[in-house]
Amino acid sequence: MNVENFALACRFLPSTYVEQGKQSRKSHENYIKILLEHKKLPVKGWDRSTIEMLLNEISTMDSNNFLGNAGIGEREGRIASPIVVQRHYGLAHGIGRSGDIAAVQPKAAGSSLMMKLTNAMVLDAIRIAGVRSASSCIVVPMATGMSMVLTFLTIKQMRPEAKYIIWPRVDQKSCFKAIFTAGFEPIVIENILVEDELRTDVQMIEKHLKGIPPEQILCIYTTTSCFTPRAPDSLEAIGKLCKEFEIPHVVNNAYGLQSSKCTHLIEQAARSGRLDAFIQSTDKNFMVPVGGAVIAGFDDSFISKISQTYPGRASAAPVMDLFVTLLSMGVEGFKDSLIERKGMYRYLQKRLQQVASAHGERLLVTPNNAISIGITLSSMPTKHATELGSMLFTRNISGARAIAPGVTKQIGSVTFENYGSHYNNYPYAYLTAAAAIGLKKDDVNTFARRLDRVFRKLIKPKQLKLKLENEIISVSSSNSSFRN
Amino acid sequence: MNVENFALACRFLPSTYVEQGKQSRKSHENYIKILLEHKKLPVKGWDRSTIEMLLNEISTMDSNNFLGNAGIGEREGRIASPIVVQRHYGLAHGIGRSGDIAAVQPKAAGSSLMMKLTNAMVLDAIRIAGVRSASSCIVVPMATGMSMVLTFLTIKQMRPEAKYIIWPRVDQKSCFKAIFTAGFEPIVIENILVEDELRTDVQMIEKHLKGIPPEQILCIYTTTSCFTPRAPDSLEAIGKLCKEFEIPHVVNNAYGLQSSKCTHLIEQAARSGRLDAFIQSTDKNFMVPVGGAVIAGFDDSFISKISQTYPGRASAAPVMDLFVTLLSMGVEGFKDSLIERKGMYRYLQKRLQQVASAHGERLLVTPNNAISIGITLSSMPTKHATELGSMLFTRNISGARAIAPGVTKQIGSVTFENYGSHYNNYPYAYLTAAAAIGLKKDDVNTFARRLDRVFRKLIKPKQLKLKLENEIISVSSSNSSFRN
Amino acid sequence: MNVENFALACRFLPSTYVEQGKQSRKSHENYIKILLEHKKLPVKGWDRSTIEMLLNEISTMDSNNFLGNAGIGEREGRIASPIVVQRHYGLAHGIGRSGDIAAVQPKAAGSSLMMKLTNAMVLDAIRIAGVRSASSCIVVPMATGMSMVLTFLTIKQMRPEAKYIIWPRVDQKSCFKAIFTAGFEPIVIENILVEDELRTDVQMIEKHLKGIPPEQILCIYTTTSCFTPRAPDSLEAIGKLCKEFEIPHVVNNAYGLQSSKCTHLIEQAARSGRLDAFIQSTDKNFMVPVGGAVIAGFDDSFISKISQTYPGRASAAPVMDLFVTLLSMGVEGFKDSLIERKGMYRYLQKRLQQVASAHGERLLVTPNNAISIGITLSSMPTKHATELGSMLFTRNISGARAIAPGVTKQIGSVTFENYGSHYNNYPYAYLTAAAAIGLKKDDVNTFARRLDRVFRKLIKPKQLKLKLENEIISVSSSNSSFRN
Amino acid sequence: MNVENFALACRFLPSTYVEQGKQSRKSHENYIKILLEHKKLPVKGWDRSTIEMLLNEISTMDSNNFLGNAGIGEREGRIASPIVVQRHYGLAHGIGRSGDIAAVQPKAAGSSLMMKLTNAMVLDAIRIAGVRSASSCIVVPMATGMSMVLTFLTIKQMRPEAKYIIWPRVDQKSCFKAIFTAGFEPIVIENILVEDELRTDVQMIEKHLKGIPPEQILCIYTTTSCFTPRAPDSLEAIGKLCKEFEIPHVVNNAYGLQSSKCTHLIEQAARSGRLDAFIQSTDKNFMVPVGGAVIAGFDDSFISKISQTYPGRASAAPVMDLFVTLLSMGVEGFKDSLIERKGMYRYLQKRLQQVASAHGERLLVTPNNAISIGITLSSMPTKHATELGSMLFTRNISGARAIAPGVTKQIGSVTFENYGSHYNNYPYAYLTAAAAIGLKKDDVNTFARRLDRVFRKLIKPKQLKLKLENEIISVSSSNSSFRN
Repeated sequence: MNVENFALACRFLPSTYVEQGKQSRKSHENYIKILLEHKKLPVKGWDRSTIEMLLNEISTMDSNNFLGNAGIGEREGRIASPIVVQRHYGLAHGIGRSGDIAAVQPKAAGSSLMMKLTNAMVLDAIRIAGVRSASSCIVVPMATGMSMVLTFLTIKQMRPEAKYIIWPRVDQKSCFKAIFTAGFEPIVIENILVEDELRTDVQMIEKHLKGIPPEQILCIYTTTSCFTPRAPDSLEAIGKLCKEFEIPHVVNNAYGLQSSKCTHLIEQAARSGRLDAFIQSTDKNFMVPVGGAVIAGFDDSFISKISQTYPGRASAAPVMDLFVTLLSMGVEGFKDSLIERKGMYRYLQKRLQQVASAHGERLLVTPNNAISIGITLSSMPTKHATELGSMLFTRNISGARAIAPGVTKQIGSVTFENYGSHYNNYPYAYLTAAAAIGLKKDDVNTFARRLDRVFRKLIKPKQLKLKLENEIISVSSSNSSFRN
Repeated sequence: MNVENFALACRFLPSTYVEQGKQSRKSHENYIKILLEHKKLPVKGWDRSTIEMLLNEISTMDSNNFLGNAGIGEREGRIASPIVVQRHYGLAHGIGRSGDIAAVQPKAAGSSLMMKLTNAMVLDAIRIAGVRSASSCIVVPMATGMSMVLTFLTIKQMRPEAKYIIWPRVDQKSCFKAIFTAGFEPIVIENILVEDELRTDVQMIEKHLKGIPPEQILCIYTTTSCFTPRAPDSLEAIGKLCKEFEIPHVVNNAYGLQSSKCTHLIEQAARSGRLDAFIQSTDKNFMVPVGGAVIAGFDDSFISKISQTYPGRASAAPVMDLFVTLLSMGVEGFKDSLIERKGMYRYLQKRLQQVASAHGERLLVTPNNAISIGITLSSMPTKHATELGSMLFTRNISGARAIAPGVTKQIGSVTFENYGSHYNNYPYAYLTAAAAIGLKKDDVNTFARRLDRVFRKLIKPKQLKLKLENEIISVSSSNSSFRN
Repeated sequence: MNVENFALACRFLPSTYVEQGKQSRKSHENYIKILLEHKKLPVKGWDRSTIEMLLNEISTMDSNNFLGNAGIGEREGRIASPIVVQRHYGLAHGIGRSGDIAAVQPKAAGSSLMMKLTNAMVLDAIRIAGVRSASSCIVVPMATGMSMVLTFLTIKQMRPEAKYIIWPRVDQKSCFKAIFTAGFEPIVIENILVEDELRTDVQMIEKHLKGIPPEQILCIYTTTSCFTPRAPDSLEAIGKLCKEFEIPHVVNNAYGLQSSKCTHLIEQAARSGRLDAFIQSTDKNFMVPVGGAVIAGFDDSFISKISQTYPGRASAAPVMDLFVTLLSMGVEGFKDSLIERKGMYRYLQKRLQQVASAHGERLLVTPNNAISIGITLSSMPTKHATELGSMLFTRNISGARAIAPGVTKQIGSVTFENYGSHYNNYPYAYLTAAAAIGLKKDDVNTFARRLDRVFRKLIKPKQLKLKLENEIISVSSSNSSFRN
Repeated sequence: MNVENFALACRFLPSTYVEQGKQSRKSHENYIKILLEHKKLPVKGWDRSTIEMLLNEISTMDSNNFLGNAGIGEREGRIASPIVVQRHYGLAHGIGRSGDIAAVQPKAAGSSLMMKLTNAMVLDAIRIAGVRSASSCIVVPMATGMSMVLTFLTIKQMRPEAKYIIWPRVDQKSCFKAIFTAGFEPIVIENILVEDELRTDVQMIEKHLKGIPPEQILCIYTTTSCFTPRAPDSLEAIGKLCKEFEIPHVVNNAYGLQSSKCTHLIEQAARSGRLDAFIQSTDKNFMVPVGGAVIAGFDDSFISKISQTYPGRASAAPVMDLFVTLLSMGVEGFKDSLIERKGMYRYLQKRLQQVASAHGERLLVTPNNAISIGITLSSMPTKHATELGSMLFTRNISGARAIAPGVTKQIGSVTFENYGSHYNNYPYAYLTAAAAIGLKKDDVNTFARRLDRVFRKLIKPKQLKLKLENEIISVSSSNSSFRN
């Protein structure tokens, strides 16, 4: 209510109570004020009512919610279903304009404001996460792979002769497919095995750079966050090569914002070499539903060029999810999540170590991967390793990956040996698990317990059958520990 | 509740009441059964509670909502904010897999089911709208422009030599930009003026087809729905050329599903010639928020190829919006909307005719455009025409477009004269309005009233000032007529 | 957002768009302003977003939602469950104070404002419904029966000698039980049969008034809305007696606000005689969930005395339901509902007439009951009449009442013959149905169709069995026609 | 979805995924099963989705939500506003029937089930809280005061001659007013001062019992939870007198369920003497909005008699709030709250002690009050004591009570000296604060800090002005620490 309405409320209530109500409203508005002024993550997370108050204010600013509005165009933000109105807080116009996905829409001032505030808060979060010199970012309503495609297509407009993308192998399909979707040819760089760990073959990259005319190379396309035993790419060394050979450098930092290891690599590569853009998923780093990515970099005009390459408007849903989540986390909540994740990494390592050694296995030694942890599956036949993976899945362990040698896979024009292990000839079957943001101690404990049982079952399946059935029943009848 | 729980409820309630409750549940479930069996739009729209019941069931089927689940991967569908959980009904995994945006996700059986049901219902709606022989479609969480890019990139994989896209001019930026974003060069075909209407220069297209090696042409890229005075392209004639020259044919049917004129053209072109894919916006045809498009066609394997080109997963939000909306509309609701729109077209025409003739103007004669209607602005100076547009905007008329000659615009490598009018040399300034799905009589009346006032104000601005201010006040103090 | 925040938004958006957003906010606030100024039902109903905006504003004014508040009392409006927070828009303090249920609470200015605005709008609605000289009302979070008890207890404080309540018989249990609960003894006045209709025996009342010392009579307790064949009581004649004998007059107007017949009787009795309070249900007149009643009258100090008799605070939920509903209806919506109800009365009468005459029955002639309609069940055995009632119930017809003679019922100290028919010796078995607010044509048609089938089945049960089973299936598989 | 629908889902999804979805649904349903079987608080709290699933199931069981239902009665559970539908999960019929507020409604099997489950869970919670031999309870949608009235009126039906209620003084208005509202005369028993504490004058009660014919006494009406310096009444001694003199005993246990001290007194009095009913608020003990009370006792038939005295149906809103809250808490959550409260009592005591001694005051010695804590305000003039209270209020400290001698108050026919202090002649002015359920450390700290400042300001107001203004600003700009 505005000043006038508060004054009218005095006809119903003693003015001291009205005054307190006014102060209360003011203190909510003060949060909004600080956000608009500072353009940063709030220090402390907001409560639900303040977040929804802002969403409602924003909604009011879009033309489809003007009370006297008459829309006579072909897109007027009409929403047929009340369920849909509600879940989007009445926002209908999406984000962006035909010319630029980061542009302000005349019909949708509110949505545009939400987008700009979200981009500002995400940039702040990126810096807090460790990429301190990042200067610009945009949230796009596409997952990482398609965001890669857009980035490649943008670079293509600046390097029209480019045909090749140099790419150190990482066995994750979407990011590799992005190369073909965008119309390029990959030059795959096999990794080097150092003890258990797979590292970038920087020399091989350099060899290629020397052998191919630079204008034919679109970019070097590296990866930070990945499944063990692969380590993050040697960004700093590659960044230096990119600078030297004047080749763009694009980083797949899918879930790397949550790890100071990955963000440190990015920051270093940008400072000492060249790094044009790093792209990360919103769901994996900020715990929102799948559907968005953040394209960030150190040169505002390049990031702006990407946003201008996007043809037309796009869904505001991933932006709204991020907007709400960042406001509710605040700097404190975000930092706490990062710290908690680090702790969970150590805890997961410890528990896996215990289970592994109880069954004659061991942790993989991969010191550079700060998220994903592996244990060998070398004491059992290969087919058991695969079976172990699916047994975990049917026991409601999601996300564990059992990798056994022998899988050959073709993607586009390229054939990969031992697909899944990032390497043609990895010496062991193994199992990986990730200490990702949001992981809870309960998850780790449940995982460790079930993994232990699966190990036993694989060794003496018959004997344990009865016991396991009991276990399943007890699982389904126990209450969950988390709340609303 | 299942049978067992209903039995237990008899400890609290007389069994006849429990039985009635069971029957009630069964009748809700019966709706779901019919949907799963028929894979079509329900005949009548569903009530809110049944829709939400199904959303909740679907949610339960995704692994992040399994009560005993322990996720130890890098993406486990964790959602940090309860607001976000709620607005997505707990769905977090998006749609698609790395290999195919239309594929089933193991971690997200519920989301996958929702996607498949949505695709099935949309296909049904497309057929009801008039494209009876459409055989396949996918809903993608990108707006029309980016969906065009994806389609072009898919064709590129099959026609690696292709460089050009033949495109009859339509002055809408996003769809044109898509050509550049995908990395192609447009061959722009100027329109032909027939009375007031702009039509496709089919002969010029044929000339180009004869002059360029076919493998260098990616496709002909036509448009159905567009602002008057442009007519939909001559799809049938172009379709025959495409068939003859073996050139793919992609149609921008942005908001054409709502018009039987446009869907008829598509159906005819597909039957008698060649038409590979037609792409439409979900927001403009189904009244959902911006963010999705439907890529549809007549050859399942081609549509499937497009879905396989998409790298990685994507937001499920536009799919959910459509899912909810289609269920709540049903066949009856959807057909009613189409019929109502046709009626509103006639009504808008009538009211515009009245205002126009009162001020010495007239309707543009554009018999082939069944959505957009224009009136001349020839009795006033050009700058007044432009002013009229912005005066309408500040009076809360959104979507009206006042086009005055003289605007030159460069997009990518191409320069357009008189941008906005689809033609280098259109003889009049004019104003357009669209009878789009969801338009209400009140909107038309408000528009006509305000347009009339703006006309008067442009003629005698001073005199009317006082009256207008009063009007603005009365607008803001009147209640809206629509309800929740 | 306040002026300051809108100014800050100009750092993100062009100021013209911000200005439009500001205007939009202002037009929402203008609704609130008019409400606060006029203290009446808005002319047109509000849209959902404006209603929720006001609820959120109101919520902000309660101390449990002050951002910096520290509560250290024993009741601080803490809410444990987020579901509960949400469904009450954060309001926790209920309404009223220890001294007065209509008083302003210092900790809950927002809730208090909502209560006062609701009372004001309800008073307006009562006047619109026909009781033009009503001067005061309070919404209490108790259903009609308990509200009667409170009213009786209030009068008792002014008439400490009172023991008896004179009550013309109406066979509705709660309202009669209220007499005993409040600690009084009823003097039951049997009705008079005039043709089919049961009317008040005014002479008998007068006789009692002359025979008992007035200070021993608490009040005369009459009824307007009731099941046919009973007519509303003769309020005007009774009102005159009350005036003459100085006896309070309390009216059970349970669902009578929806009928101009009932409100006219109240208005007349108050003008020409005495009528202290009339009490009506909120659910039956305003289509909200059960739980509230409106106690209204013509003397502010008496109504205020009732509110002061209520000990302590009470639930705000029924007030909020009414607040939301009245805002969304507006004067127009409320009047439309009343008019529609009248039309449905005629339609129900017509359809019942058809079914009745097809089976040798006829409408009861009860010209003074404008809501409830009856048909005779005289052509079938008594036990069939009862069976017919339960057959309708199991066929999902709720609210029809089949009354067969012969039921004896004791309530408190009183024994009623032929309970249900308001009369010791009603000549027919009969069936009643009511044209209540919110009834739809579909309901009437479904009822008529099923009633017709039940009639047939009672005559030749075996033969029709197969057909009926089919019918049940078709019912459960049809979609509902109403929307969200 | 039922078995049939899961089978149909296999047309869209691999059957293993469908199977997992089915298991997930089953595990949700298993929670419901355990609830229906055990009729107790679940051990662990439920997650939001399971709670809402059950609410939706319950909703489906009410006739207004039957898909094919046609309602032709005068109350059919129609809800006009979608906002209202949603906030009540479609439930409209309230609880109870005309004969009994705890009876099952034929039209509302779902609502009835919810009510019965809630009563069962509350009884479990009462036992957990310490009243182990409680045998029966009902949740009524009225606050404590009105529930007292209902209880008194019920006893009146069994003791028709009763006129008096014996009541040890407690200065809380509603509970005292209940005596007059129900039509009785209070016999006020002044308390006895023992050190700082006020205790029951049991001898005076006995004296009255001996002097008045027992049939004229309705009951003894005692209090457990109250503001310090009053102690809970001596329930055990009074219970014995009640047993001896055959007088009913009703306990106002307003917020006493949260304190094992109060529940212990109730349990003991019931075991060794007589205690007919104890009544508590739902908001103060279970953190739901104001509006409900629990009437509990040790004799099922007496509690049942109370529920039968209630005339008609009533709001289900307070029941739903409690239902949701108890499910989300579970035994663990409820016990944790109780334990946490005890800890906060000690913490509040410690912090108050510090502030008090810093300003020459001290804690009141009231060893029997385990919730409310007081400090003297003896070093300042009386008017300052009062001012201190309002200064705290304007500084957003709610619930603190500053009591200064000298207030005379009349309620009904009784005049109280020094109202507020439960005693005609309490020696000090003092300030109370309560460690009630849900109190957080932050609240205590904020209170202690502001109290300290207010103390200082009262001593040297001028000097501190500037500092305080700064403080206010810092309060309003700080973010809240709690989350959604």
